[in-house]
Amino acid sequence: MTVADAGAAAPPSALDGVEAAARRAMDQKTKPPGSLGVLEEIAIRLAVLQGTGRPEVERGRIVVFAGDHGVAAEGVSAYPQVVTGEMVRNFARGGAAVNVLAGAAGLGVEVVDCGVAADLADVAGIVHAAVRPGTRSFVVEPAMTAEETAAALEAGREAARRAAGDGARALGLGEMGIANTTAAAALLSALTGAPPELTVGRGTGVDDAGVLRKRAVVARGLALHADALADPRCALAAVGGLEIAAMAGAALEAPRHGIAVVADGFISTVGVLAAARMDPSILPALFFAHRSAERGHGLALEALGGRPLLDLDLRLGEGTGAALAIPLLRAAARILRDMATFESAGVSGAAR
Amino acid sequence: MTVADAGAAAPPSALDGVEAAARRAMDQKTKPPGSLGVLEEIAIRLAVLQGTGRPEVERGRIVVFAGDHGVAAEGVSAYPQVVTGEMVRNFARGGAAVNVLAGAAGLGVEVVDCGVAADLADVAGIVHAAVRPGTRSFVVEPAMTAEETAAALEAGREAARRAAGDGARALGLGEMGIANTTAAAALLSALTGAPPELTVGRGTGVDDAGVLRKRAVVARGLALHADALADPRCALAAVGGLEIAAMAGAALEAPRHGIAVVADGFISTVGVLAAARMDPSILPALFFAHRSAERGHGLALEALGGRPLLDLDLRLGEGTGAALAIPLLRAAARILRDMATFESAGVSGAAR
Repeated sequence: MTVADAGAAAPPSALDGVEAAARRAMDQKTKPPGSLGVLEEIAIRLAVLQGTGRPEVERGRIVVFAGDHGVAAEGVSAYPQVVTGEMVRNFARGGAAVNVLAGAAGLGVEVVDCGVAADLADVAGIVHAAVRPGTRSFVVEPAMTAEETAAALEAGREAARRAAGDGARALGLGEMGIANTTAAAALLSALTGAPPELTVGRGTGVDDAGVLRKRAVVARGLALHADALADPRCALAAVGGLEIAAMAGAALEAPRHGIAVVADGFISTVGVLAAARMDPSILPALFFAHRSAERGHGLALEALGGRPLLDLDLRLGEGTGAALAIPLLRAAARILRDMATFESAGVSGAAR
Repeated sequence: MTVADAGAAAPPSALDGVEAAARRAMDQKTKPPGSLGVLEEIAIRLAVLQGTGRPEVERGRIVVFAGDHGVAAEGVSAYPQVVTGEMVRNFARGGAAVNVLAGAAGLGVEVVDCGVAADLADVAGIVHAAVRPGTRSFVVEPAMTAEETAAALEAGREAARRAAGDGARALGLGEMGIANTTAAAALLSALTGAPPELTVGRGTGVDDAGVLRKRAVVARGLALHADALADPRCALAAVGGLEIAAMAGAALEAPRHGIAVVADGFISTVGVLAAARMDPSILPALFFAHRSAERGHGLALEALGGRPLLDLDLRLGEGTGAALAIPLLRAAARILRDMATFESAGVSGAAR
């Protein structure tokens, strides 16, 4: 597969040439062929995505898309809705897990208010792009109108363009939104046809009764919007979320700039799945940070044919897994750029 | 479990206090309890190991222990023995995979010649600690004498002391030695009783005939030294290797300085297993970088009760997996040190 519209829009034949050259270069490095496993494939995919045999991921960014959910009123989260806005303030001050992990990895963090149900006008250092103060409850009506969905997608595209302007080579898609595992589960069911039993999990930590409540809520939403679920964009509007649509928009736009899209956990991966259903040509640009402990994530990964890089039982979101995984992309690219070859190092090859 | 002799030698009761305090602190961070999964456990283990609620892994080091193997004469490797010394020169020039990956992770690399069968006197910037020019072939006689084994163990202990002196908080155990998957397989069989069918793999890439040859060589070694295999130190001498003994020595010494030991792939993990059999009190200081594609690694991990952090089909050795994994320890420690609490950030807790 090639990224037809990646970077400088090289024609497919030239990109095939980049891939073949990168594979040849990788096999001349001072190591047994294939011995760096997944890292070798990452490096070659980055070469194709960037249209060069010397890819690099020195700069990367986590974007945390925040939005509230009308469906929170159904009691589907362990935390009150006010936490979404409180956490945005925490992100802005640098105190959250994603700030710490991105900092450790040398990555920037950008926070985008896509529609938090709180007045965040006084919060400096974030991107104010609120479409509306949270979605409508999808058990009553569509979560978003077509226009709101388009605006949220565009907020994500804008974030990808900003990242491109700043030289980022990888974009980790993080999110914050109380009740958004419920919306993501509904969207995953809509996109795959899987029943709520397979897509609804504990989220931030609801108990057994809470899981049953979430399942019932998702089932009601799917029944109410049954006619709208065949098209990914309509499904996103009906049961998705502002921050989920924004993540989809970022995933649609970033590959056009040669930027690797790094999905984080459950919600992020569902957002990326929606994007891939809208435009399958983004698939070669997608990377999957980790296998989340949240139920349904495995199904979302499977639907995308994705192999996660880490398996650490994370279930926090925010882009925390992406912050841990982007250094693996950086390392892979450096292998292709910086390692010696058998010839340059004067090392003997395998005996024949 | 506690590390009785870790760091400033706090008594066990004080260490229990450190662990309890670290767990409390972790649960006050702005995230659902447990949502950072394995990272939370790593942070708490580092707190206990360092004897402080504010652990850090800002500095870390990969040590590449190099040694040759008499058993290479049996045709068990895809590469000629001369490659061991050639790769040491490659490490010294910074051109190998471990140099690149350690550099990407901000880690130092130290190379220790424990007994390469080549004259490396002219190689600057490495530690010259050769015990003898490669082991003897274990299909003929013991690979090392008791004195040579002690000297190799001490070379590893010295490396751990140097790391401690330089402020390293994590020590990745890498290795280079043509034919050392054969020695490690024999040692793993000796330590666990598992037959060669379960411990011998393709190493750097031998074909099916090569695997059969390796199995037969390991079986001959195990039969010849059957009387010496019950004691881990004697097994190490009989069928192990100079660099494997050095890794064991480093794993025995590092925890005494509060340094986390990060096992790399198959050979490294077998070296660590030998160390743990000699002194089980090191177990709480052990971390396992990745699940290697080399046959036998899963068995070695199981024998240690270890859960690997990465699963990327690596099978290169050198400490490459450790270089990718130490940043995860660093990140975990930063979570405990740098994240805001619900109280400090003014974030609401879970609804009751």
